Amino acid sequence: MSAPLRASTFEMIENDFVKHDWRSHSRPRTLRYVLLKWILCFLIGGITGCVGFFNNLAVENIAGVKFVVTSNMMLANKYAWAFMVFAVSNFILTMFASVITSCIAPAAAGSGIPEVKAYLNGVDAPDVFSLRTLVVKIVGSIAAVSSSLHVGKAGPLVHTGACIASILGQGGSRKYGLTCKWLRYFKNDRDRRDLVTCGAGAGVAAAFRAPVGGVLFALECVASWWRSALLWRTFFTTAIVAVVLRALIDVCKSGKCGLFGQGGLIMYDVTADKITYHLVDLPPVIVLGIIGGILGSIHNFLLEKVLRIYNRINEKGLARKFLLAASVSILTSCCLFGLPWLASCRPCPTGLKEACPSIGRSGNFKKYQCAPDHYNDLASLFFNTNDDTIRNLYSAGTDDVFTKFSIILFFVTSFFLGIISYGVVAPTGLFVPVILTGATYGRLVGMLMGSRSTLDHGLFAVLGSASLLGGTMRMTVSVCVIILELTNNLLLLPLVMLVLLISKSVADTSTTNIYDLIVKLKGLPYLEAHAEPYMRQLTVSDVVTGPLQMFNGVEKISNIVHVLKTTVIMGSL
Amino acid sequence: MSAPLRASTFEMIENDFVKHDWRSHSRPRTLRYVLLKWILCFLIGGITGCVGFFNNLAVENIAGVKFVVTSNMMLANKYAWAFMVFAVSNFILTMFASVITSCIAPAAAGSGIPEVKAYLNGVDAPDVFSLRTLVVKIVGSIAAVSSSLHVGKAGPLVHTGACIASILGQGGSRKYGLTCKWLRYFKNDRDRRDLVTCGAGAGVAAAFRAPVGGVLFALECVASWWRSALLWRTFFTTAIVAVVLRALIDVCKSGKCGLFGQGGLIMYDVTADKITYHLVDLPPVIVLGIIGGILGSIHNFLLEKVLRIYNRINEKGLARKFLLAASVSILTSCCLFGLPWLASCRPCPTGLKEACPSIGRSGNFKKYQCAPDHYNDLASLFFNTNDDTIRNLYSAGTDDVFTKFSIILFFVTSFFLGIISYGVVAPTGLFVPVILTGATYGRLVGMLMGSRSTLDHGLFAVLGSASLLGGTMRMTVSVCVIILELTNNLLLLPLVMLVLLISKSVADTSTTNIYDLIVKLKGLPYLEAHAEPYMRQLTVSDVVTGPLQMFNGVEKISNIVHVLKTTVIMGSL
Repeated sequence: MSAPLRASTFEMIENDFVKHDWRSHSRPRTLRYVLLKWILCFLIGGITGCVGFFNNLAVENIAGVKFVVTSNMMLANKYAWAFMVFAVSNFILTMFASVITSCIAPAAAGSGIPEVKAYLNGVDAPDVFSLRTLVVKIVGSIAAVSSSLHVGKAGPLVHTGACIASILGQGGSRKYGLTCKWLRYFKNDRDRRDLVTCGAGAGVAAAFRAPVGGVLFALECVASWWRSALLWRTFFTTAIVAVVLRALIDVCKSGKCGLFGQGGLIMYDVTADKITYHLVDLPPVIVLGIIGGILGSIHNFLLEKVLRIYNRINEKGLARKFLLAASVSILTSCCLFGLPWLASCRPCPTGLKEACPSIGRSGNFKKYQCAPDHYNDLASLFFNTNDDTIRNLYSAGTDDVFTKFSIILFFVTSFFLGIISYGVVAPTGLFVPVILTGATYGRLVGMLMGSRSTLDHGLFAVLGSASLLGGTMRMTVSVCVIILELTNNLLLLPLVMLVLLISKSVADTSTTNIYDLIVKLKGLPYLEAHAEPYMRQLTVSDVVTGPLQMFNGVEKISNIVHVLKTTVIMGSL
Repeated sequence: MSAPLRASTFEMIENDFVKHDWRSHSRPRTLRYVLLKWILCFLIGGITGCVGFFNNLAVENIAGVKFVVTSNMMLANKYAWAFMVFAVSNFILTMFASVITSCIAPAAAGSGIPEVKAYLNGVDAPDVFSLRTLVVKIVGSIAAVSSSLHVGKAGPLVHTGACIASILGQGGSRKYGLTCKWLRYFKNDRDRRDLVTCGAGAGVAAAFRAPVGGVLFALECVASWWRSALLWRTFFTTAIVAVVLRALIDVCKSGKCGLFGQGGLIMYDVTADKITYHLVDLPPVIVLGIIGGILGSIHNFLLEKVLRIYNRINEKGLARKFLLAASVSILTSCCLFGLPWLASCRPCPTGLKEACPSIGRSGNFKKYQCAPDHYNDLASLFFNTNDDTIRNLYSAGTDDVFTKFSIILFFVTSFFLGIISYGVVAPTGLFVPVILTGATYGRLVGMLMGSRSTLDHGLFAVLGSASLLGGTMRMTVSVCVIILELTNNLLLLPLVMLVLLISKSVADTSTTNIYDLIVKLKGLPYLEAHAEPYMRQLTVSDVVTGPLQMFNGVEKISNIVHVLKTTVIMGSL
């Protein structure tokens, strides 16, 4: 990155000018300021909700057409043509995402959550919240997810929400002359940071239809500073997102949204109404937590290695970047289309003749290459959009639908595809691949338990997702609430908590969380929750007399803030 | 209060001794410290969960026996005897609660949430977290709630959780020689405050079976300081509470808990599975929010006036205190027993001959004085435990059970009984009366809407509760999540959010929130989220040269901290 990093301040700088300005404020002006701030939150929620919905609508329709066309070709036994169409459309979509990201807004690459987290903790990287980044992030994310790359939409949506918030707060983009004079109030770091917090929460709320999860996510992101007024404002924003999403999905229920379907595509219903669990179910749940912790650590470790390699490749120019993206796309297409052939066809379960094999997009029972009245269980996992695959894995009463072989194969593929896909120069999210991978080994544990456990395998899949999220992201409270809101089942709570608790604890012993790891790789410093030990030895005079000595590099900015914080505490009490 | 207030510090005092001590710490010792802290959280969650369950069990059995005995007497037409037994048992229970509170632990009076909030924001009142207070709070709360006083259990449970946390953290009570040496690590303000935060969260979790609500409640209580590590620890504690409650309720399902029943007594299930709402339902919801805001303001205003009068009475010695408690108890008994006679008997709905009239405790259809096959709808509200009344009001599919007259009469009585009962010297909570009052006018709005709204009246009751909670407590995010967890229905979310948003905004224009109001009445100062305006004019030198001038009274302690905070910000950037 060419432009320098900037440390954002945590509070307004209260010098004489500001104080004088404040004193001169009239009551109407203060009222206008407060009102404007609420209106901005309303707009952030509304726009983020619309973008989130539009993102889903576009992905379901683009990927949907792709799958319908290829499925129809396979029904007509034109397998080679089907693969060609599938691979070429994936390739075009991936390259489109990669080209616009590389050439127009490199800051839109990746998940965006690390950048948002860094910003909220005091480091403002250049161009991260520009209008260009916003547009590329939205369009690129749709293309990347539609191209069947093993990437998610949640991270990009968080970044999108934050971008919208930042741009609105600045009264538009100065670069393109789209500025509003009356929004200049919010051109200070504190107000901007507040708005970006709301935007990040709104992004999570839009991605998972999880308004409370969004608030908690924002709260867990902002490790170093939190004001109680912010809680209420973020909550308001995510509520708006929830209302907007609900209204738009109601519109789609009348069937006007093409392949978007009945709008259940954002929320996964684990339909087992009455979940009961007993003491005997605890051991597998604990095992899931431990597996999640270990796999999460390995995932983070491998991802870091892969990202280092990718960084070296990407530094060598545009051609290499595109080559990398192309290779990943082709590899993914081959895996998704080729691996299902390894599964043997299974006869449709009796009594389900109508739903099996499911011709078209959704449903557990893909016909693929099989004879009539048979289905290919592996194709239901591979040859689907990520959302549909998650729904297949989460759905209750499907204990006999998948074979162990299919689940293991999908688990291994999903784990490694997730790691190699993230680093592609395009808007890529980490949440969905992790949820997918977790769900598979969750189901596997359920299968291995067999009749010894009373829990549904769909439930095991949910717990598996929770465990891997806990092991990689380590944002336990928000992940827990997101999972609950995603599955709309509060009775899961104690089990999800237990799994998260164990997986986070296990994973924390070895590697750091995935976002801090990416932040470090990107060279963005930020204020951690705890000061480094040596700072305890510093005194007031070290700061006051020698601040210049400490500014030896960008990495030290966060330290300065810490030293100042520590100094106060030491000096004050 | 005789002992002086103490300002608790927000961070450890890092002087040379502490730093030297730290440097000498070995790794095993640090590990032991961390492990101990988690074990303490586990214990806090476990014990608070048990206490919460025991509280419910005791109340349901004591109050249950009372209602069964009086109902049986009324079946035998011995109305005068029934009233005598009812009034005398209520009187004895109230006086018991009042006497132990006045004589043994005056700090256990009231809700306890104001004290906890004050402590978490920097002011440590004497005796608030002592062992004596804990015991009296638990026993007194059971007696007060069982005595049919219009008070709740949630506030006292929060205080109980905080007490348990504080006592465990101090390694027992020094006064009674119950101390543990190995727990001395936690005898500093920061660790104690962390534990008390966890305890407060655990209390809410135990009262409403709302673990996530508990975390958010703790978060909203701690207005002035929050560490991200705390979120995770509080979450762990409330998870333990949830698991313990679930396990204990499972034990009760086998019918070993007397009148406790099937364990649905803590969680209210609004049984309408599929809630759908349309644009036409928005106006009544908005109206509910406005009513909630206005009524909340009036409630807080009246409560303050009543508390001022009560304070003057209570200051005049024990006899007056007891007289006050006795009057409130007798008045309450008269209302609960007498007012149902004003309702006319209604014939049982056809098809419900089995459930109507419900002989015994639970059920919507109390026979009371009515002829066979008739029921008294007002008695179902008045002549019940608070938990059962809330369940009656919340339950779906009961649109025709209550008459408008009954609902209005109950609303007025509940509103005023709630206000005059809180100030009695006994452990009294505010949550449950507010929930009850809100639920009644919610239902009333539903009735007035009639067929114009598609929403169930039980749902209107839930939204009414939310609106009054928003108007009085103003803790919007936690109240929202508590309501959702209470009713176990996430689909309510957008409506609850909307109601809370409106009611809080309306109420904020006139009065302050109920807890701050009580804190002020008690003379406890605490650190508010924003510094007072004049502090903006202070400079570093005002603090450094003239700290003594500022300590003109206890009220100024919070200011000092604020000044120091402001100073840093001014000095640092």
